[in-house]
Amino acid sequence: MIDRLCIIGVGLIGGSLARALKTTGACKEVVGYGRNAASLKKALQLGVIDRFETKLYPAVKGSDIVVICVPVGAMKDVFCQLAPLLTQDMIVTDVGSSKRSVVEAAQTAFGYLPANFVPGHPIAGTEQSGVEASFAELYHGRRVILTPVAETDHKAVEAVQSMWQKAGAVVTKMQVDHHDEVLAATSHLPHLLAFTLVESLARMDEKAEIFEYAAGGFRDFTRIASSDPVMWHDICLANAKELLNMLNRFSADLEKLRKAIKEGDSQYIMSVFQTAKQARDRFCGN
Amino acid sequence: MIDRLCIIGVGLIGGSLARALKTTGACKEVVGYGRNAASLKKALQLGVIDRFETKLYPAVKGSDIVVICVPVGAMKDVFCQLAPLLTQDMIVTDVGSSKRSVVEAAQTAFGYLPANFVPGHPIAGTEQSGVEASFAELYHGRRVILTPVAETDHKAVEAVQSMWQKAGAVVTKMQVDHHDEVLAATSHLPHLLAFTLVESLARMDEKAEIFEYAAGGFRDFTRIASSDPVMWHDICLANAKELLNMLNRFSADLEKLRKAIKEGDSQYIMSVFQTAKQARDRFCGN
Repeated sequence: MIDRLCIIGVGLIGGSLARALKTTGACKEVVGYGRNAASLKKALQLGVIDRFETKLYPAVKGSDIVVICVPVGAMKDVFCQLAPLLTQDMIVTDVGSSKRSVVEAAQTAFGYLPANFVPGHPIAGTEQSGVEASFAELYHGRRVILTPVAETDHKAVEAVQSMWQKAGAVVTKMQVDHHDEVLAATSHLPHLLAFTLVESLARMDEKAEIFEYAAGGFRDFTRIASSDPVMWHDICLANAKELLNMLNRFSADLEKLRKAIKEGDSQYIMSVFQTAKQARDRFCGN
Repeated sequence: MIDRLCIIGVGLIGGSLARALKTTGACKEVVGYGRNAASLKKALQLGVIDRFETKLYPAVKGSDIVVICVPVGAMKDVFCQLAPLLTQDMIVTDVGSSKRSVVEAAQTAFGYLPANFVPGHPIAGTEQSGVEASFAELYHGRRVILTPVAETDHKAVEAVQSMWQKAGAVVTKMQVDHHDEVLAATSHLPHLLAFTLVESLARMDEKAEIFEYAAGGFRDFTRIASSDPVMWHDICLANAKELLNMLNRFSADLEKLRKAIKEGDSQYIMSVFQTAKQARDRFCGN
């Protein structure tokens, strides 16, 4: 049982965690904190949080777990404000999509890596954002990756793991850099490609005619381009190294396919498409 | 009312058209033709067609409309077989995703462009294929593009338009080359990118671990990579010119974004992501 949980940044991710823990009775009180008072009021009205604070000290005071749910570019500022308020019995975790950058931000802000800070990342979300989009079932059956470092206390890891499990998630542990590599491949690069394609078409399409002929496949393919630009801007810069590695690999493969199409190399095209279909059918189902 | 409709290639697209026209009573008899007898038997069992033929002549004989639903790479062969059987009161249309290649195939096979041949393309489908995946509602509210040429008889165009409208579709007319440009942008390039990304990851991921951490966004983004490889191989080669034009434009934009991420150009990244989100929210909704 968590007596008091503090959510810093009550949007889709933080709001859904709060809803899940309240729904299952895993948490007595949820305190919200953020820069946007209107959004916090909304969260209170929706019953997502029990109260909110607009100053950090009363928000985190007496909290068992503080979950930081802000875009990764804002993590360092939050850590800096949190540093003088951190106590030994307060566990801190985050939900950032890039973990090397968050660990480095914590190191800089605290001057060391606190034993009760557990870097984490729930692999869940929708293209929506804001507390209105939050729902208690978001984490059901979804993976949460924790990336503890050498300094991290294993009891803190267990507490954060238990919290996510009570929200319905399956928790895995991973090395920080491996996390960033895997997420660059399955999440950050796809977002980059979707944003680029839609922007590219929007710019060439003065009469907005092209999109009228977009079918279901295009809608699905570009759904992630409706994601929050600030959040994804931050992720691209925070995980630039792994993202650029993946992008270079992808661009080289795309160039090979471009050449094959230009030269009418049926065999190469078929082999790429067949491998892709087999892999996706096998791992993703529908 | 269509007395007799012949579907050449009874899969997702042809099967769904047959189901739609039978459901609404817009067609008395549907005759199926194809190379795969097992699939035709299945179509008969499912009630998608009323009978099937394994020779082309009895299949098309007496048909008001013949709809060719084979991969675009197989169109020329079908036209060649159809050429000696074509009568003046038989309307022929197709469903190919690239129209210049189909028009050229017809020109080569017939030696001229028959007045009662209406090139067409329903902008509908799923990543599934085969007659088992067909359903009567596939075309409800979806667009069908017809690309008549100078030789095409307007009465034939009207008949094909009426057929698609009875299946629930919204019919638009477009120039052949403009169709190919629009579809390269909204369909062919996205498929190419999805196939390339999934193949790229499958190849680097010996332990199949990466896909385990793929969330809903990745599933949506790569859904079209589960599409039929033969169909998409054919489309890429058939519409190579427009597809390569779009790919070059996309690659140039991707390179600009790569540079911006490398150089930490926040402003550029934000502007691309914001434009993309606005365009997608505006034109695609969810």
